[in-house]
Amino acid sequence: MAKNDAPKTAITPTRAEDYAEWYQQVVRAADLAESSPVRGCMVIKPWGYALWENIQRELDRMFKATGHKNAYFPLFIPKSFLEKEAEHVEGFAKECAIVTHHRLVAGPEGGLVPDPEAKLEEPLIVRPTSETIIGAAFASWVQSYRDLPLLINQWANVVRWELRTRLFLRTTEFLWQEGHTAHATEEEARAETMQMLDVYTTFAEEFMAMPVIKGPKTASERFPGAVDTFAIEAMMQDRKALQAGTSHFLGQNFAKASGIKFQTAKETEEYAWTTSWGVSTRLIGGLLMTHADDDGLILPPRLAPAHVVILPVLRGDDTKAKVMEYVDAVAAELRSTSYGGRPIEVEVDKRDIRGGDKQWEWIKKGAPIRIEIGPRDVDGNVVMVARRDRGTKDKATLGRAELVTKIPEILADIQSGLLAKAKQHRAANTKRIDDMKDFEKFFTAKNEDKPEIHGGFALAHWSGEPEVEAHLKDKFKVTIRCIPLSGIDGVADAKDLQEEGRCIVSGKPSRQRVVFAKSY
Amino acid sequence: MAKNDAPKTAITPTRAEDYAEWYQQVVRAADLAESSPVRGCMVIKPWGYALWENIQRELDRMFKATGHKNAYFPLFIPKSFLEKEAEHVEGFAKECAIVTHHRLVAGPEGGLVPDPEAKLEEPLIVRPTSETIIGAAFASWVQSYRDLPLLINQWANVVRWELRTRLFLRTTEFLWQEGHTAHATEEEARAETMQMLDVYTTFAEEFMAMPVIKGPKTASERFPGAVDTFAIEAMMQDRKALQAGTSHFLGQNFAKASGIKFQTAKETEEYAWTTSWGVSTRLIGGLLMTHADDDGLILPPRLAPAHVVILPVLRGDDTKAKVMEYVDAVAAELRSTSYGGRPIEVEVDKRDIRGGDKQWEWIKKGAPIRIEIGPRDVDGNVVMVARRDRGTKDKATLGRAELVTKIPEILADIQSGLLAKAKQHRAANTKRIDDMKDFEKFFTAKNEDKPEIHGGFALAHWSGEPEVEAHLKDKFKVTIRCIPLSGIDGVADAKDLQEEGRCIVSGKPSRQRVVFAKSY
Repeated sequence: MAKNDAPKTAITPTRAEDYAEWYQQVVRAADLAESSPVRGCMVIKPWGYALWENIQRELDRMFKATGHKNAYFPLFIPKSFLEKEAEHVEGFAKECAIVTHHRLVAGPEGGLVPDPEAKLEEPLIVRPTSETIIGAAFASWVQSYRDLPLLINQWANVVRWELRTRLFLRTTEFLWQEGHTAHATEEEARAETMQMLDVYTTFAEEFMAMPVIKGPKTASERFPGAVDTFAIEAMMQDRKALQAGTSHFLGQNFAKASGIKFQTAKETEEYAWTTSWGVSTRLIGGLLMTHADDDGLILPPRLAPAHVVILPVLRGDDTKAKVMEYVDAVAAELRSTSYGGRPIEVEVDKRDIRGGDKQWEWIKKGAPIRIEIGPRDVDGNVVMVARRDRGTKDKATLGRAELVTKIPEILADIQSGLLAKAKQHRAANTKRIDDMKDFEKFFTAKNEDKPEIHGGFALAHWSGEPEVEAHLKDKFKVTIRCIPLSGIDGVADAKDLQEEGRCIVSGKPSRQRVVFAKSY
Repeated sequence: MAKNDAPKTAITPTRAEDYAEWYQQVVRAADLAESSPVRGCMVIKPWGYALWENIQRELDRMFKATGHKNAYFPLFIPKSFLEKEAEHVEGFAKECAIVTHHRLVAGPEGGLVPDPEAKLEEPLIVRPTSETIIGAAFASWVQSYRDLPLLINQWANVVRWELRTRLFLRTTEFLWQEGHTAHATEEEARAETMQMLDVYTTFAEEFMAMPVIKGPKTASERFPGAVDTFAIEAMMQDRKALQAGTSHFLGQNFAKASGIKFQTAKETEEYAWTTSWGVSTRLIGGLLMTHADDDGLILPPRLAPAHVVILPVLRGDDTKAKVMEYVDAVAAELRSTSYGGRPIEVEVDKRDIRGGDKQWEWIKKGAPIRIEIGPRDVDGNVVMVARRDRGTKDKATLGRAELVTKIPEILADIQSGLLAKAKQHRAANTKRIDDMKDFEKFFTAKNEDKPEIHGGFALAHWSGEPEVEAHLKDKFKVTIRCIPLSGIDGVADAKDLQEEGRCIVSGKPSRQRVVFAKSY
């Protein structure tokens, strides 16, 4: 088909034309967020924030069901606290916002300047993460083994001074949750680390419809100060990996740095074993890049701020009252129905703007189901139903009486369909690779114009040598995303990957294939 | 009764002995929050944070029911933004946290210091409130009258560099919500301001069981940059006033400062009319000082993180299984019941510690109902029920079958009882005063040891002169809390206060009594 005949899309450029720019345009078209006048900080707009609220609600429920309680700790971290753990401060010192003064005063050249008389004795760091400040609290809360385990979560904003930022994926300020727990034994702390990794896996797959591979990171990719970092890694539509959540086993490193000690049942004194784990507003970027298409966002129903948008088709005043009465009745019927354990959220778009504009707006925003209702539908006691996961012209007529049973079924079908499609995409672009030439070919641009279109996930053997990692990162911008503990549907079971082999670079023996990929 | 015979209380000192210290001790005994190593910042502990989550849930529901949507704006405000509104910057410049650098680097004397190479061109202020940064966003979102009203709320942390801090009541960092709206007409913006004042009033009285007087502040007590500030004012047990929430009509001041302009239906260009309104974690301090007693916190059931705490009385292993089975069954029955539109929250305290200690812990934490269950209760198919709003030894036996109907009734009775008691306290300590000598007597310490015990709220005439306010503030530390729009149960209806009279200081004509009080 000639370029001029290409079907019109709501988003320009398309994924194929310019993936990075397509991403920004979808964020904008779906009205999720925008850049702010503050370098690297974003404004999360109502539709994006409602999505985050749904993410929060489901995760919070899962955290509480596993015994965690929420608390809140200070935004500011004294510099000396950050310095307590050597690797930790090394990891965050280069990109942190530093508060040095607590008053503005009239400057010599007009305008206000930080008051030299109000300089802080010790600079405060705007938290990039809270291990050290929460560690100080834990040290005073934990006295005896009876105080353990201590299972705390915090919903908060954090700041990391990133040089290159991208809405949701990498911003100077972002919203997240950070779990922090302390345990009496290494075994318990390790079990907690894995439990939360599993909670994230379940959330990603069942709610976001985003398949992930879970597993430990290599030493070079660990959280600063952690003994082990585990991650969930998802494949985006451009075949790059996105680290979507991490769970850290911190050993006794932070307990020693903060003095979290307890008296055991045998009356000896020991340091606690701690963990931390987090996911952030980055998930929204991941959700977008997993499901959105060239017409905009596609929301998985279990997280959609509105499941159904009703668009009344109003043609002149004589039928308006009749249509609106019918619309309100349909909305009420749907709201009394539930999907995924909560009432169906219905938005009725009564705005007096062109019907086509209205439709396209909700397509771009990714509402799972659109229902159009015009005078003839009222007469026929039917509605027109359009699914966001189908073509924009694909509409079906449903009888009004069927709605309360059919709509939850359609939502469930969209949810499972999105997951299946994402798994299919991942399977199609994940490959066992045992030869360096194949590896090179896999990660080398097929097209000079589009260096981002590469093979995807390579399952290859690795000897465990950091030099090999460094070499591949340097040469192909490819890193080990994780050492997989879970399988990849349609490609390999977890146990199939734990096979003997030889490192793709050094040829040394390897007992496990790892996941190599380019990443965000 | 001689001092030695005084009944033992869980909190030392008592309210009568030292109110300010009693407050701190209740915060500690109820495990709500603690000071942090960061000057003026607090750690909100799980029980305190769960209370805040309940406050958030109910307010958020009310905000959404009135058409508002949540969004999120940057933590940092460029200095130049704050400077756009003259009164506003004047109000916040003296107490703000200023970010000046974005990297730490090894210092000449060891340790890390802010990197001089990473100094920001323009300092960033950690938001003390967000009118200016949200104004910038609104300026780009609003083009036409069709974009209005714009009804936004943000849940966030804010920082005001307070010199003297007190947990919940005044902290450097605190959590709050800030509503920000823009409207096409003054009338609409004023209606919004009053609507949100009413939402706060309803929330304070129906959920917190804290009666409030609503009304405008005088010019001297206005929010910096506002045309009118309205507040809800509550009387604490020491008879001081607590400003519990504010709603500001901002006129076109911030719209002009930020450039929020729109095209009217008549195609003229006009500035929008804006409002802002907020409540904060300060509410928790108000709740405490309204209801707590010398044994600790008393939680209004509609906000209690746990409505019912079940304390199994375990005496030896032979009855343990029987008791626990019964306890779990009772807990399940209660959880399937609802109160105030949500399932009854039941906490079963299975910890293996002394029964008395356990009881006192929950008394201090303010759980509305404690249920004790021992072997004999199991045999009799009964439970022992203790209400937190009654004496600590006041317990009643309830048959198990009655529980599901009786417990919601008791919770409702506690809730209404707390409100009635608080209203009674306020009525007993609110007085119409028309004579300066009476006024002076009312606000002068009755006892030199306890300067905080003064009369309470004085309803007196005021001419409207700022000099009068300044004089009374200076002389008695008494301010005008608000010009009441609502009545005070048991004292006066709203319209009774709008009577002719003469200013208590200047003798000039006045058409309205105002509320004078000492305050937090």
